[in-house]
Amino acid sequence: MKTRRSERLIDATNYLLSNPHTLIPLTYFSKRYESAKSSISEDLGIVKKTFLKRGVGFLETLPGAGGGVIFTPAINKEVASEFIDEMVETVSDPKRLLPGGYVYLSDILGSPETLRKIGLIIATQYANDKVDAVMTVATKGIPIAQSVASCLNVPFVIVRRDSKITEGSTVSVNYVSGSSNRIEKMELSKRSLPEHSRVLVVDDFMKGGGTVSGMHGMIKEFNSELVGVTVFAESPQKVKTSNLKTTSLIKVKKIDTEKQELQVEKGTYLEDVSPDNFS
Amino acid sequence: MKTRRSERLIDATNYLLSNPHTLIPLTYFSKRYESAKSSISEDLGIVKKTFLKRGVGFLETLPGAGGGVIFTPAINKEVASEFIDEMVETVSDPKRLLPGGYVYLSDILGSPETLRKIGLIIATQYANDKVDAVMTVATKGIPIAQSVASCLNVPFVIVRRDSKITEGSTVSVNYVSGSSNRIEKMELSKRSLPEHSRVLVVDDFMKGGGTVSGMHGMIKEFNSELVGVTVFAESPQKVKTSNLKTTSLIKVKKIDTEKQELQVEKGTYLEDVSPDNFS
Repeated sequence: MKTRRSERLIDATNYLLSNPHTLIPLTYFSKRYESAKSSISEDLGIVKKTFLKRGVGFLETLPGAGGGVIFTPAINKEVASEFIDEMVETVSDPKRLLPGGYVYLSDILGSPETLRKIGLIIATQYANDKVDAVMTVATKGIPIAQSVASCLNVPFVIVRRDSKITEGSTVSVNYVSGSSNRIEKMELSKRSLPEHSRVLVVDDFMKGGGTVSGMHGMIKEFNSELVGVTVFAESPQKVKTSNLKTTSLIKVKKIDTEKQELQVEKGTYLEDVSPDNFS
Repeated sequence: MKTRRSERLIDATNYLLSNPHTLIPLTYFSKRYESAKSSISEDLGIVKKTFLKRGVGFLETLPGAGGGVIFTPAINKEVASEFIDEMVETVSDPKRLLPGGYVYLSDILGSPETLRKIGLIIATQYANDKVDAVMTVATKGIPIAQSVASCLNVPFVIVRRDSKITEGSTVSVNYVSGSSNRIEKMELSKRSLPEHSRVLVVDDFMKGGGTVSGMHGMIKEFNSELVGVTVFAESPQKVKTSNLKTTSLIKVKKIDTEKQELQVEKGTYLEDVSPDNFS
């Protein structure tokens, strides 16, 4: 039995949202709904307009035999800007100050709603790049990597500072930890990343850049290529251990544990992202 | 200007999917679409039917002044069963065997599509329970916790085996690690979990149950309550360090590194979940 338009629109919306960055042939929908391709085309036209109007993302139609539609999640620039302002305010709370000049972020990085936004924001930046995998370092970068990977529909890989026996053979690299100025080691399971991958690096907090630099080294060890680096927060340091171009959502400018002062401002995100990428 | 039904259906679908387990007043939609409540009610009726038919979840209407709709994501039992069969087959691959009787799962736990399904499957089990937070232990449990928390729309908290300076004050508990029969220590940041929370514990792999038991102890330290324990895979051990009722998606029955044998079967999930919970 033919499926009614109203049902088709609801189901297709759900399907597209769950399958971003994937080419879906029109025949898939026409079979699923036992409806003519012309009706499906009309449906998708309505979905496309609504997604654009509501800032959900782009629905692109590729014509021809191998054609179909691809949904690219993309945030609206205003929504992204509002969210970043909100994060600046939230992180500015001096109660977040921890001894040693650290900032408590675990609540932010444990909120699914916030993570969904962070993922969409970062995925928007790389929406038009070819990305094969998202890389981060354990532990706090993981939720961000997962959120971004979910929007880009690619796997994420986790580099570890501690060696684990549950990963099989690993590749290890050394890196300079900016905060302690010591040589540290990080490892990645050999089978977790195929060679010649294009890798996007994300993390929660960047100080000197040593960890990010280490991940760059790791990517080279896998004969792979770095697409870009985006972190939730960066804290500009005198001693820089990396010259990699890095995008940040927010910047922690000043941390004074004694005076209980914490100064936070917008990061480079809104300048770094191409205006065409926003929905 | 009034929004057309087709656009309303698409946007409401997206909105409901992004805001599960949340009471949304009908007035929210009638303002958003500048449409009469009666039209909105009709829309939501269509969404409800389609979500049920397509196995997306339940859309419940609460009548009255404080009423509205709540979307509860829930997987279809057949789809869950198929997915579990698929996982049994995937994990049975002897190439996954690691020295020491470990099984390589990082690719599975790094695939957003797989994680979305695992999250939905576990969230379906607890769809009708009051859950305030999802808890796991770093590192590999994190993606599962995040996926479940996203479906339940609650925060997730990460217990750590290594002490970190970026978390502030912590509470620590000791537990018996079944594999090594040693006393180990795990920590949770004090401010990450409010007292009197109802906590769901999830993890990637359970051997003797020592870690899960440790998390139970941690929950008690926070004057909180355990709602349930669900793990992706369990491997029944002779020495059990926990008597907690645990649900598993798959069971690794036999690991023989020498003969390169790995025997995997369905876990207890399909028996443990109430049939009413499936969509």
